Amino acid sequence: MATQGKVITCKAAVAYEPNKPLVIEDVEVAPPQAGEVRVQILFTALCHTDAYTWSGKDPEGLFPCILGHEAAGIVESVGEGVTEVKPGDHVIPCYQAECKECKFCKSGKTNLCGKIRGATGVGVMMNDKKSRFSVRGTPIYHFMGTSTFSQYTVVHDVSVAKIDPKAPLEKVCLLGCGVPTGLGAVWNTAKVEAGSNVAIFGLGTVGLAVAEGAKAAGATRIIGIDIDNRKFDRAKDFGVNEFVNPKDHDKPIQQVLVDMTDGGVDYSFECIGNVSIMRAALECCHKGWGTSVIVGVAASGQEIATRPFQLVTGRVWKGTAFGGFKSRSQVPQLVDKYMNKEIKIDEYITHNLTLEEINKAFDLLHGGDCLRCVLKV
Amino acid sequence: MATQGKVITCKAAVAYEPNKPLVIEDVEVAPPQAGEVRVQILFTALCHTDAYTWSGKDPEGLFPCILGHEAAGIVESVGEGVTEVKPGDHVIPCYQAECKECKFCKSGKTNLCGKIRGATGVGVMMNDKKSRFSVRGTPIYHFMGTSTFSQYTVVHDVSVAKIDPKAPLEKVCLLGCGVPTGLGAVWNTAKVEAGSNVAIFGLGTVGLAVAEGAKAAGATRIIGIDIDNRKFDRAKDFGVNEFVNPKDHDKPIQQVLVDMTDGGVDYSFECIGNVSIMRAALECCHKGWGTSVIVGVAASGQEIATRPFQLVTGRVWKGTAFGGFKSRSQVPQLVDKYMNKEIKIDEYITHNLTLEEINKAFDLLHGGDCLRCVLKV
Repeated sequence: MATQGKVITCKAAVAYEPNKPLVIEDVEVAPPQAGEVRVQILFTALCHTDAYTWSGKDPEGLFPCILGHEAAGIVESVGEGVTEVKPGDHVIPCYQAECKECKFCKSGKTNLCGKIRGATGVGVMMNDKKSRFSVRGTPIYHFMGTSTFSQYTVVHDVSVAKIDPKAPLEKVCLLGCGVPTGLGAVWNTAKVEAGSNVAIFGLGTVGLAVAEGAKAAGATRIIGIDIDNRKFDRAKDFGVNEFVNPKDHDKPIQQVLVDMTDGGVDYSFECIGNVSIMRAALECCHKGWGTSVIVGVAASGQEIATRPFQLVTGRVWKGTAFGGFKSRSQVPQLVDKYMNKEIKIDEYITHNLTLEEINKAFDLLHGGDCLRCVLKV
Repeated sequence: MATQGKVITCKAAVAYEPNKPLVIEDVEVAPPQAGEVRVQILFTALCHTDAYTWSGKDPEGLFPCILGHEAAGIVESVGEGVTEVKPGDHVIPCYQAECKECKFCKSGKTNLCGKIRGATGVGVMMNDKKSRFSVRGTPIYHFMGTSTFSQYTVVHDVSVAKIDPKAPLEKVCLLGCGVPTGLGAVWNTAKVEAGSNVAIFGLGTVGLAVAEGAKAAGATRIIGIDIDNRKFDRAKDFGVNEFVNPKDHDKPIQQVLVDMTDGGVDYSFECIGNVSIMRAALECCHKGWGTSVIVGVAASGQEIATRPFQLVTGRVWKGTAFGGFKSRSQVPQLVDKYMNKEIKIDEYITHNLTLEEINKAFDLLHGGDCLRCVLKV
């Protein structure tokens, strides 16, 4: 490749300060070092975690940075020792790494991986604890180990999933975060069985993916809860078959659901990131076995609470990150499932824009209509 | 039997008011009605739940009542329709019923049973919503559906476990509550695997039974946490092989345990009933898979709290009641295990007194030396 080993100058959207519009800049992207992969990003979507960090509410957010973590692209070049991908491979960058060697990866109990967290948590690469991005000599921090709001990015080799080259990148980019998170919360974390009753709090992309996963698992009643009535129509297409708007009830929403379901639901999923709703989601579960999964990300410093009696009488409180999917092993399988029409992706894409229009895309994300906006990078 | 169908007048310890000494009274015990069993209690132990209700802190506590729920005896007579036990059978009254017919019993997911809760929760019997106990014409409430601080008691047929008549009742009475709660928290609720690291908060009877269960399950490190150093010596006999006194550390106890165990324990058990310790027990668990089980009963109105990040990064928060054992089906199996020397009981009995000495027994329970005090009734 003509660019291999050289600095690439390309367009990227830089977040210089919290809550200020991103700036499309000419960014210099250094070549990948040992164990690193430089990826040409072709399509990226926006997710609420990008917006959360951008808002300045994330105490671990570092600026200036290049956000973005739900994308797809093609390997441009690889650093020393990288064997599992090569230039030209189609890939999805994964914010959740999978090294297959650490205590976590070997445990057989979790999809979390500890190998590169020390670097990705502080916006740099493991090898030299520095960034590969700069603008006019100033380093720009990485974000979540992915930084996909850029035409080229550098990621760790343990953070790229090699996928079927026939898969449309403008669709499967969504498999980098929200859709797997929802599906996996149902399939891997809760392990919903056929015949179950399910409550889903929040009918955004993740909540709809939970509905899709629950329907596939054979859940009977799939109850969507949202304060926006307009969301119900769309949710039906994803499997939601009952809708509750908490605003229509005087009673606490957990009591409404307990009354509707003869004692509570078998499984509930919080897909908003609101600690009060997390409590409601636990407390609407059936005594004896109801399991509640926290999927949404709460603002920093906030806490969940309940009476311990809720747990002593058999409810289980869990959470999920990336739906429990092992990224490098399982994202390619999800791509295959999409290609075999076993899971939806197209239906989550409500808007298409270009990287230059990224600030407009953030505005759309905060409106109620947008599920996912895919940017051509 | 000479007494069958007649009122029996016998000795019982009546709690007339919270926190006032129990009074040994001549109590009239009515014959069992349909679906009921009258049991001659021969031995009863005291448990902290008795003391909690007696203290007046239990908002559901009703007075006057006859406390007691960890006992063994012999069936004196049975009411209409009772087929599973007959006069002369050796039994353990079970505060957790098992009807084998309700939604809970049939779920295959819980040991909780819903059938008689409406009555036992308010201190009466299902059949006529009245008490079978009275003193000089005044009804005395039942407690937990068992009321074993009496020479005779009446319980629902779904609340008696028929056991091996060769089992010593002065020992197996302990299988009515504390020992099964601890063993079952490990075996049924947490499902601890061989090689696991376990933390146990509180080294009373339940905590020691957790240790015994963990050792039997093959746990490698069994870390006992207690503010009383004297408890460690005894705890070794039950399987605890490391001891931590939070008073010896400046750091929060969860951090001490995380540091000791390279990231946290695989399983933790709160056997105290303190909501701050419940939080510590969750937060000392290993990221990715650590599971914390609440075994202790917190005071009314208190709440547990944590950051949702604790769950999103893979910890699981659960609770257990009677260790998840199905009472009528599994208490007899535990009796058999004791007879086969597979589980301990004798070692938990530190004191023996008579029913007349019950107030002294409550004093002992509040001292640090006593595990279980068994009363000859």
